[in-house]
Amino acid sequence: MQAENESLIRDAIELALLPGVGGLTQNRIWKALRCISDLFSMEAPALESFGIPGEAYPIIRARSYQAIAAEIYDWGIREGCRFLMRGNPGYPPLLEEIFDPPLILYARGHLEALEKPSIAIVGTRKPTIYGLQMAQGIATDLGSRGISVVSGLARGIDAAAHRGCLEANGITIAVLGCGIDVVYPREHRQLTQKILQNGLLLSEFPPGTSPAPQNFPIRNRIISGLALGTLIVEASEYSGSLITARLTMEQNREVFALPGNLTSPQSFGPNYLIKQGAKLVQTWRDIVEELPPDIRQEIFIKEDAKPPDKCELEMLSGEETRILDMLKVDEAIQFDKIYRSSGLQIPYLSDLLLRLEMGGRIRQLPGNLYVRVRK
Amino acid sequence: MQAENESLIRDAIELALLPGVGGLTQNRIWKALRCISDLFSMEAPALESFGIPGEAYPIIRARSYQAIAAEIYDWGIREGCRFLMRGNPGYPPLLEEIFDPPLILYARGHLEALEKPSIAIVGTRKPTIYGLQMAQGIATDLGSRGISVVSGLARGIDAAAHRGCLEANGITIAVLGCGIDVVYPREHRQLTQKILQNGLLLSEFPPGTSPAPQNFPIRNRIISGLALGTLIVEASEYSGSLITARLTMEQNREVFALPGNLTSPQSFGPNYLIKQGAKLVQTWRDIVEELPPDIRQEIFIKEDAKPPDKCELEMLSGEETRILDMLKVDEAIQFDKIYRSSGLQIPYLSDLLLRLEMGGRIRQLPGNLYVRVRK
Repeated sequence: MQAENESLIRDAIELALLPGVGGLTQNRIWKALRCISDLFSMEAPALESFGIPGEAYPIIRARSYQAIAAEIYDWGIREGCRFLMRGNPGYPPLLEEIFDPPLILYARGHLEALEKPSIAIVGTRKPTIYGLQMAQGIATDLGSRGISVVSGLARGIDAAAHRGCLEANGITIAVLGCGIDVVYPREHRQLTQKILQNGLLLSEFPPGTSPAPQNFPIRNRIISGLALGTLIVEASEYSGSLITARLTMEQNREVFALPGNLTSPQSFGPNYLIKQGAKLVQTWRDIVEELPPDIRQEIFIKEDAKPPDKCELEMLSGEETRILDMLKVDEAIQFDKIYRSSGLQIPYLSDLLLRLEMGGRIRQLPGNLYVRVRK
Repeated sequence: MQAENESLIRDAIELALLPGVGGLTQNRIWKALRCISDLFSMEAPALESFGIPGEAYPIIRARSYQAIAAEIYDWGIREGCRFLMRGNPGYPPLLEEIFDPPLILYARGHLEALEKPSIAIVGTRKPTIYGLQMAQGIATDLGSRGISVVSGLARGIDAAAHRGCLEANGITIAVLGCGIDVVYPREHRQLTQKILQNGLLLSEFPPGTSPAPQNFPIRNRIISGLALGTLIVEASEYSGSLITARLTMEQNREVFALPGNLTSPQSFGPNYLIKQGAKLVQTWRDIVEELPPDIRQEIFIKEDAKPPDKCELEMLSGEETRILDMLKVDEAIQFDKIYRSSGLQIPYLSDLLLRLEMGGRIRQLPGNLYVRVRK
């Protein structure tokens, strides 16, 4: 496919590089021409009718960016990057349905991710431990049931959602607000690698684009546009996640929200959305229930076929149970505090905590903090 | 009114005393006869058609309970108790609308309470501090805006709702699951006195009735039946408050619920109800918005006419602000801990806490614990 479409892709890359040509203009051009290459031989009045600013006309006529577009294309081919073109096979059908789909999407990783039913999970960059735990837990629940989790690779809730999905060996999709070759934020280098290996990175921005603040709201329409529905986990009063929720509604997709205490500013957003009609989510089932009937039924039938959970706590020693009871789901506790309350020797306690973590019952957070895993 | 109706009231009291004659049977009799006294001269087949059990026939014929009913009546008159009779003036019109209104209601306190728009606030007997604070805060917000707060005088959320309403000099209505002369639970003696002075106590059970567990679910239909809507604050998975919520829906009244963290078992009930269609409440406004237009408009017009809040924190000293910042809305902190963190002398700190409490910014809880008041 790639070879036949090479000139198509190069033209689209070139178009997106033009100054003053954003998503809306690209859409107008695409709808009118379908074949972008025609644009480069058009006269000023026609270009003007698309809303292209005058400064771009000489650039278009001279094809000043043709060489750069070719370089980007070659780089992409070398790096194993795929180009998803609007109107061509491989472009996500759900994304095609939105008001302003991107003309071209740069993709790295496993394109199969786009063939699964997917749910977006987004939220604040400054979450509480409650929010982090819930985002990660629900992403695990969805990922383990064959649902792709889409998010924005931002700090906080986004990262927790990607991690939760990966934890379940699920496929997660990260939609970036920068070029597909840019790692942002820096501390997500490892997470980005894991997503490349087991999931998919997507961006509509040309390689090398830096993470400018104005890119993120633009990117959000792709997050919600790829998914059957979007779950908002935590979002304060003026959070960008509320914009994603609005886009989701405008795209006629389901908005899900995780409730929280009124005393937590981070739960203002989800609570407000629920009041406005978003579906309150208590467990993954509340999300799956709203999926198309065939997907929903397949998941529930598999679920019912699972053997009932063993009474897990019976398999823990008394000491393990005691330590587990000291830990909380929504509050992280310092190792030192557990140590002092436990009365155990440090090596013995460390070993016990590791066993509990391997068993998926607790989780270690940065700073030698421990939380219980939501069951 | 009382004098003319004396025999009517006595007959109703007598009827309610009969063995095996519950609310449903009383309703059947009332609908058929309107005049209860006719019952006492009826033959067995007619009595049977009402569903009255055979054991009661000789008691009815002999009017064995006539003297007790007279005694109860006399006691009531002596104690300033009022008798609200179904179908007669003074009986709450909203209660008349439900499927099975009580034939007679014993009332002590201020009957004007029944003339105001009212909202029920109910919840678990084992709340979190979050739930207590929210119940009390929202009751204060409603009470100060002329809305009666109805509840069941139980431990936990109910008591917090009554207290919050009283705090705002609002009128609160307590519907008891025991006789109107019985104080239950014992620790609510003082609260009961305050409600008598500034609110209303109601019960459908004859004086002297002890608080049997089966009375409470029966009583719940009156709580929801008196109110335009019911707010459920905290309720675990098998809580009686969920029964009240179901009754509220069956009575075609609005169900409101306060969201909370999924990790809190007490928030399971409200979150579940919201998922089922109850309105999520973030502030008192969310409740008032659903009231009949005339009531709603009057409250909002008064609200808009209020002078804007002064920037309150400016009026606090630096020390007061520092102590206030140590306290949390949903977690109580021990005096000792505040003392140690503050570095202040005990008498000075006590004085400062008292000032903050008088200013309505913090609240002392039993056990020398302090919480910040929700604003």
